[in-house]
Amino acid sequence: MTRPGTFQILARDGAARRGTLETAHGTVQTPVFMPVGTQASVKSIDPRDLDEIRAQIVLGNTYHLYMRPGDELVAQMGGLHGFAAWDRPVLTDSGGFQVFSLAGLREITENGVTFRSHIDGSSHIFTPEKAIAIQQNLGSDIMMVLDECVAYGTEYDYTAKSLEMTTRWAQRCRDAHPEGQNGRLVFGIVQGGFFEDLRTRSAQQLMEIPFEGFAIGGLSVGESPDEMRQLLAHTAPLLPDQKPRYLMGVGTPMDILDGVALGVDMFDCVLPTRNARNGTLFTSFGKINIKQARFRDDPEPLDPECDCYACRTFSRAYLRHLYMARELLSYRLNTLHNLRFYLRMMEEVRDAIGQGTFEQLRARYRAAYEQSESAAENCRP
Amino acid sequence: MTRPGTFQILARDGAARRGTLETAHGTVQTPVFMPVGTQASVKSIDPRDLDEIRAQIVLGNTYHLYMRPGDELVAQMGGLHGFAAWDRPVLTDSGGFQVFSLAGLREITENGVTFRSHIDGSSHIFTPEKAIAIQQNLGSDIMMVLDECVAYGTEYDYTAKSLEMTTRWAQRCRDAHPEGQNGRLVFGIVQGGFFEDLRTRSAQQLMEIPFEGFAIGGLSVGESPDEMRQLLAHTAPLLPDQKPRYLMGVGTPMDILDGVALGVDMFDCVLPTRNARNGTLFTSFGKINIKQARFRDDPEPLDPECDCYACRTFSRAYLRHLYMARELLSYRLNTLHNLRFYLRMMEEVRDAIGQGTFEQLRARYRAAYEQSESAAENCRP
Repeated sequence: MTRPGTFQILARDGAARRGTLETAHGTVQTPVFMPVGTQASVKSIDPRDLDEIRAQIVLGNTYHLYMRPGDELVAQMGGLHGFAAWDRPVLTDSGGFQVFSLAGLREITENGVTFRSHIDGSSHIFTPEKAIAIQQNLGSDIMMVLDECVAYGTEYDYTAKSLEMTTRWAQRCRDAHPEGQNGRLVFGIVQGGFFEDLRTRSAQQLMEIPFEGFAIGGLSVGESPDEMRQLLAHTAPLLPDQKPRYLMGVGTPMDILDGVALGVDMFDCVLPTRNARNGTLFTSFGKINIKQARFRDDPEPLDPECDCYACRTFSRAYLRHLYMARELLSYRLNTLHNLRFYLRMMEEVRDAIGQGTFEQLRARYRAAYEQSESAAENCRP
Repeated sequence: MTRPGTFQILARDGAARRGTLETAHGTVQTPVFMPVGTQASVKSIDPRDLDEIRAQIVLGNTYHLYMRPGDELVAQMGGLHGFAAWDRPVLTDSGGFQVFSLAGLREITENGVTFRSHIDGSSHIFTPEKAIAIQQNLGSDIMMVLDECVAYGTEYDYTAKSLEMTTRWAQRCRDAHPEGQNGRLVFGIVQGGFFEDLRTRSAQQLMEIPFEGFAIGGLSVGESPDEMRQLLAHTAPLLPDQKPRYLMGVGTPMDILDGVALGVDMFDCVLPTRNARNGTLFTSFGKINIKQARFRDDPEPLDPECDCYACRTFSRAYLRHLYMARELLSYRLNTLHNLRFYLRMMEEVRDAIGQGTFEQLRARYRAAYEQSESAAENCRP
């Protein structure tokens, strides 16, 4: 087996790249979309389903799993792999984003962040070392550093001080889990709000630390689609070419294709799974809502081009009925479909990069999705 | 293919019998448990799951499907078989029970029953002919006659008049769908409340009509377990030996085994599916609730004797976590398990009848389930 952390670029098409990232649980083909399994479960589906839709790697949430069922219990049960019966790679976020978006009464010091649980109000502290220890307990293949994710609209001075602290926290995370330990990887996270010079400073500082990959954090927090694209276009090229680049919590199909065009390799977003549960489905001809009356007696498959179980088996009329009747099967079939749509799009992306036809592929999706909403939607768990 | 409606008894053990019932969608091995798919979906699972747990036949609900999405739409989509992608037998109830338990403002006349929808308050009428026409639209393999299901505690005189009308309605149902038509079967339903002489009268009248099978209705409506057993012991032997006998809406594992001992061949109940959704699981060592703290760090499979996907794949600790976190996967895995428990029990029942060991099997379940609650629970959709 190739050493975990090895990232090989197999083909390029403009700034887009196709590659492979080695982990302790196997190889990930990039660009990759990672379904979100917040609480050790990709909502409504099981590991066999993930195999069938060809998910390569899933994301778990440090904050949620620390709260419930507790990372020590997960460790006792064999980590997320043993606990959730998933034998492929797992990436975990550091909990930073959720502490800043979900938890109450935060207090941030150089040491770490003290907060109250969104479940029972109990008090907790995450230090960089603690965030890594939790992720080690979870058995994560790719751990993320603890960062401060500043709110949209945060002023320059605070953002500048915050990114410096995030850099110091990143170094403490790396120290807590040195390069090569157990074949598990640690990725740094670029912050710096919506100020290009601060993003540059954050990237330069982080690149001094030997991380196996670099993420772009602090996007999809309420900015406009244009702001997001502009900041991404500034930040992505700052990151080392020879390491995987991960755009956290983004986004719509077009956001992802735009990210790939800028050289991003890894994506996660709750959009396909959350949308599935409110009946919004991604198809090769654009986004639809299955509850619309026009599907009432429609005998066609949801998306004739899709190879998922729902599209191979049921009519739009049946999927609409399940949704209208609030049947639990609705959530399952819609989730299978939306995730398969994202994963199939990434398969097409990888093929197109290999063939030098990525821009044609992006144009085809743009035609179907030009009216689609953008990353301003909150895509984080 | 043997003619639909053919019922062959292959083995007997006391009054218990093992047999086969032919339908237009294949052979059903009896005694059989039929998972309930109220709204054209067995809650939280799909047809592949039903195959995997070896469900032979599922139940659909005339009242619910008439309301939503409408039986004419279902007919247009190929009946329940086409609509829900299920190619094995389907039994539908007549809607009688739901009209009397769910709908509002009922008015019963000789012609039929007028009622208001529990969804939108709209006014509807079910006549015997209409109940059959709806079930024909649903493409049902086994249709049930429209009956009046009197409430628990209804007095003798009303019950006596009601059963006479139920008999006349049964004849009208048979007339609306003559024997042998399209290979679809019609079963009569014995009523008569909790009066043994009225049950006898009802059975005698119905047996004059050439139904392909006979059901015992009006149980599991609030009576004590003893009352149910006593009435069942009185009624089951009244029914023709050479036709299948169906005990509607019952019950716990012990209720079913007691029914088999009295010569009942077919059962349906929402108990395994509904209990699954509140975390109550049936196992070879009795009923448990997965939310109990003792399962928090329990690495064992839910039931080591069970061959379902949940038991083959996950620990009790993981199943408890999913339940506590209200993950949608919890409902799915619990449902798969509980249904497989019931279906595996019926496989054991059929084997035991063939081997003359049914009473030993029943004693084994009694040891595990003697404290289990009984059919006084409402088991109807």
